[in-house]
Amino acid sequence: MSKTFPGNFFEDFELGQVIEHATPRTITEGDCALYIALTGSRFALHCAEPFALDLGLPQAPVDDVLLFHMVFGKTVPDVSLNAVANLGYAAGRFLQPAYPGDTIRTVSEVIGLKENSNGETGTVYVRSVGTNQLDETVLDYCRWVMVRKRDRAAPAPVPVVPKLPDAVPVEQLEVPDELDVDDYDFGAAGLDHRWGDYAVGEKIDHVDGMTIEEAEHALATRLYQNTAKVHFNQHTERQGRFGRRLIYGGHVISLARALSFNGLANAFKLAGINGGRHVAPCFAGDTVYAWTEVLERAALPDRDDIGALRLRTIATKDRACADFPGRVESGYDASVILDLDYWALMPR
Amino acid sequence: MSKTFPGNFFEDFELGQVIEHATPRTITEGDCALYIALTGSRFALHCAEPFALDLGLPQAPVDDVLLFHMVFGKTVPDVSLNAVANLGYAAGRFLQPAYPGDTIRTVSEVIGLKENSNGETGTVYVRSVGTNQLDETVLDYCRWVMVRKRDRAAPAPVPVVPKLPDAVPVEQLEVPDELDVDDYDFGAAGLDHRWGDYAVGEKIDHVDGMTIEEAEHALATRLYQNTAKVHFNQHTERQGRFGRRLIYGGHVISLARALSFNGLANAFKLAGINGGRHVAPCFAGDTVYAWTEVLERAALPDRDDIGALRLRTIATKDRACADFPGRVESGYDASVILDLDYWALMPR
Amino acid sequence: MSKTFPGNFFEDFELGQVIEHATPRTITEGDCALYIALTGSRFALHCAEPFALDLGLPQAPVDDVLLFHMVFGKTVPDVSLNAVANLGYAAGRFLQPAYPGDTIRTVSEVIGLKENSNGETGTVYVRSVGTNQLDETVLDYCRWVMVRKRDRAAPAPVPVVPKLPDAVPVEQLEVPDELDVDDYDFGAAGLDHRWGDYAVGEKIDHVDGMTIEEAEHALATRLYQNTAKVHFNQHTERQGRFGRRLIYGGHVISLARALSFNGLANAFKLAGINGGRHVAPCFAGDTVYAWTEVLERAALPDRDDIGALRLRTIATKDRACADFPGRVESGYDASVILDLDYWALMPR
Repeated sequence: MSKTFPGNFFEDFELGQVIEHATPRTITEGDCALYIALTGSRFALHCAEPFALDLGLPQAPVDDVLLFHMVFGKTVPDVSLNAVANLGYAAGRFLQPAYPGDTIRTVSEVIGLKENSNGETGTVYVRSVGTNQLDETVLDYCRWVMVRKRDRAAPAPVPVVPKLPDAVPVEQLEVPDELDVDDYDFGAAGLDHRWGDYAVGEKIDHVDGMTIEEAEHALATRLYQNTAKVHFNQHTERQGRFGRRLIYGGHVISLARALSFNGLANAFKLAGINGGRHVAPCFAGDTVYAWTEVLERAALPDRDDIGALRLRTIATKDRACADFPGRVESGYDASVILDLDYWALMPR
Repeated sequence: MSKTFPGNFFEDFELGQVIEHATPRTITEGDCALYIALTGSRFALHCAEPFALDLGLPQAPVDDVLLFHMVFGKTVPDVSLNAVANLGYAAGRFLQPAYPGDTIRTVSEVIGLKENSNGETGTVYVRSVGTNQLDETVLDYCRWVMVRKRDRAAPAPVPVVPKLPDAVPVEQLEVPDELDVDDYDFGAAGLDHRWGDYAVGEKIDHVDGMTIEEAEHALATRLYQNTAKVHFNQHTERQGRFGRRLIYGGHVISLARALSFNGLANAFKLAGINGGRHVAPCFAGDTVYAWTEVLERAALPDRDDIGALRLRTIATKDRACADFPGRVESGYDASVILDLDYWALMPR
Repeated sequence: MSKTFPGNFFEDFELGQVIEHATPRTITEGDCALYIALTGSRFALHCAEPFALDLGLPQAPVDDVLLFHMVFGKTVPDVSLNAVANLGYAAGRFLQPAYPGDTIRTVSEVIGLKENSNGETGTVYVRSVGTNQLDETVLDYCRWVMVRKRDRAAPAPVPVVPKLPDAVPVEQLEVPDELDVDDYDFGAAGLDHRWGDYAVGEKIDHVDGMTIEEAEHALATRLYQNTAKVHFNQHTERQGRFGRRLIYGGHVISLARALSFNGLANAFKLAGINGGRHVAPCFAGDTVYAWTEVLERAALPDRDDIGALRLRTIATKDRACADFPGRVESGYDASVILDLDYWALMPR
């Protein structure tokens, strides 16, 4: 039997299957430094130890999006190595914060399967849970991907499409007990606007653009040990659908979040991922811009110091966002590459 | 009111204004590793813990130029986001060394303002002070930049041009009290030449050249959280003055300092920045070379073990420096991109 | 006398000469994070602290190939700055593991010299020993390089070619005493196959390919403080043999080792380097693939829990390895860039 693992195909998954992903990963200060170099992120909580201590945390936590990538990366060799497309995310919750020195593992459960009518691919739904070395959950989220079949003749499974919420209910968002914003330093954070200063429907152009180089997205994606071939192998991608390497959609999420600092500097922590679509592919040389709409402003049960904003951040390529390009009748403006719906925490 | 900050324009500054810059930054071993990867720096003090302990320091300090970039980077969103040009540096002093784990903040004071006769731009002079988490000053320096006006019609301020010294007086250079070079390991440092072996007027060609890639300068500049748009956004720069992204001048300083190891390996610590000009722009694909002239050899008050060299390092692009290209009547040789005048410490 | 060191030429070496290389290097978690970002390595021992603790080690050790590069890098300014080619490796042994925080020094001894008949170059054989801050040897290996003469007229030394073993005898392989695989977590490691599951003659295609960008190999090579000019200076290489920068052969070793995870995930530690040839140059834009043949399966004296596999990993460029391209009568398949023969440890 071959010792090389070619990745799972659609017919290799079964409902209820639990996959313990390999290579637990100790996240270090080195990863955090690289993440700043790769994204330019400036949120004070992840950059400044004293800022984190002032908020009652034991040290500066790992950036939530970096944590997401680390949890996600583990799943790729088993779940999406033969994926045609990463279709969506839902029901994501950031729970215990992760700190440099923590070791992250990921376990996924197959929660849905549906073969496509073409008989060549099918959608696999997984719920992936990232835990730390104390077995505390750091992140829990669902995603679904379109995966190739190895053998067109393999029988289709009974279709099961899980019911996923449109958004994580605010009651299910976790705020670390120890988190205390009494001494939140707005000067250090870089903006005075608090939760109450944001209005539902408000749109914020994050102004800046960031061009991506091949080396940058490849460094990022390898850092997360995400092994999807399309990001790394120009020799095969040259003959592929796009003629070139595709940028990991998560890198676009990172850039959009980093750009959103300009206008959302006090959205200091992510709490939930309600949904996300990689609307169009992104390639080296593209310049990423972003804007955000405030979808909801929700008080949190038991916390009158911190509130949650439900935000929708749209990222585009090669198009500034002063006029907020987004959905058009038949889909999206041609420049849109990401549509991300998430919960962030902000001091009240 | 917009939550997005477009950066300050010339008329937003006033004399005596104090700006507390956002995002304090804990410098980590991760930043130091990246700095080596980005520059190839080989000075033993920053690379080897035992070397630092032998010199009486508690651990290997952060490279002085990396520290400079971290302090500088904080100032960009407030001071130079709308800058046309970074005109000069003066009166820079490295004070308390910084160590991995230290958190750096920067506060700037506007010390001069002078509108240009075209009415479209003006020069802003700031003194920026970087401090650590104990409020000890790690770096104190002045710079001046040409900043665009938002509104041509805004009234010109009373012109104030601060008197800045040609060079930091040697008495004002700081040598950490705990620094002791009795056990300085010249073998580990890589060169036998001491302070007394350098003659005023001596010129040293640093021989090697280093080509810069887009990904490299962008990683470096993001690591320092320097947000100047010209370094990152190819979509807009394509239509700009140069048709391409401009490399952060500080990255050229880093490369010149790293190259200077070959000939100045025992210039183990920077003590002052007397002046600096980014003579011409540098772009990805350019190869940086450097040479140094010894301007002064100064004894330090109260120290007979360590001396200071005043050095002038010239960096060029795409031109070897065996014949020391520098000033010509009307300016500089066309290859010159940096002219930096600084104080370095060396064992006597 | 010039303070700039131009590197040694063939006639500068003498038999028995001992060279203490400069710039001891404290390896940090930052270096380890960058190594993952540069290579995509996924071996659990180097990625996960708890995995290392389960194996009886005090913390996650530095990846063996990263350690090799750090030890090797120190030697370049003295040994191979003027090298025409890196000809081979032999007799390499990984001894005391290295951990983040350890400081590595390298000392080389000249063990052979042979001028080439053209009178322009000669082969220098060195044995390089890397030690940690406690003077424990971490790596000991031989390599030979072809070095230019400064002066064609310089007399040829008495030729001495050291007798180097074809392979490190299995009795000389070091397994750290504290290493204990009773609690080896095969799920975390990512593969079930143990030492006994590999057959002599078995060939494993590692499937994936990794494209190299200029910024990536330059970052890697600078991280190791390897100063060989051919990797960095496009201004001179443009006029050189290949018209472009050459990728450090060690970066190809890193990629081949990282790719070999797919099929050899339990080859958790390198123990010896028997031989290695950089068969052909590699350039930015090339995509590296790899496959491995099992040459020997050796029991280790005094250990019935761990065995050694002698492996031969071939790396190619721009050619998948499903049909195992390697030696052909007159040399190698045109795609082959690396032929590496080494010992790895695996749980029995």
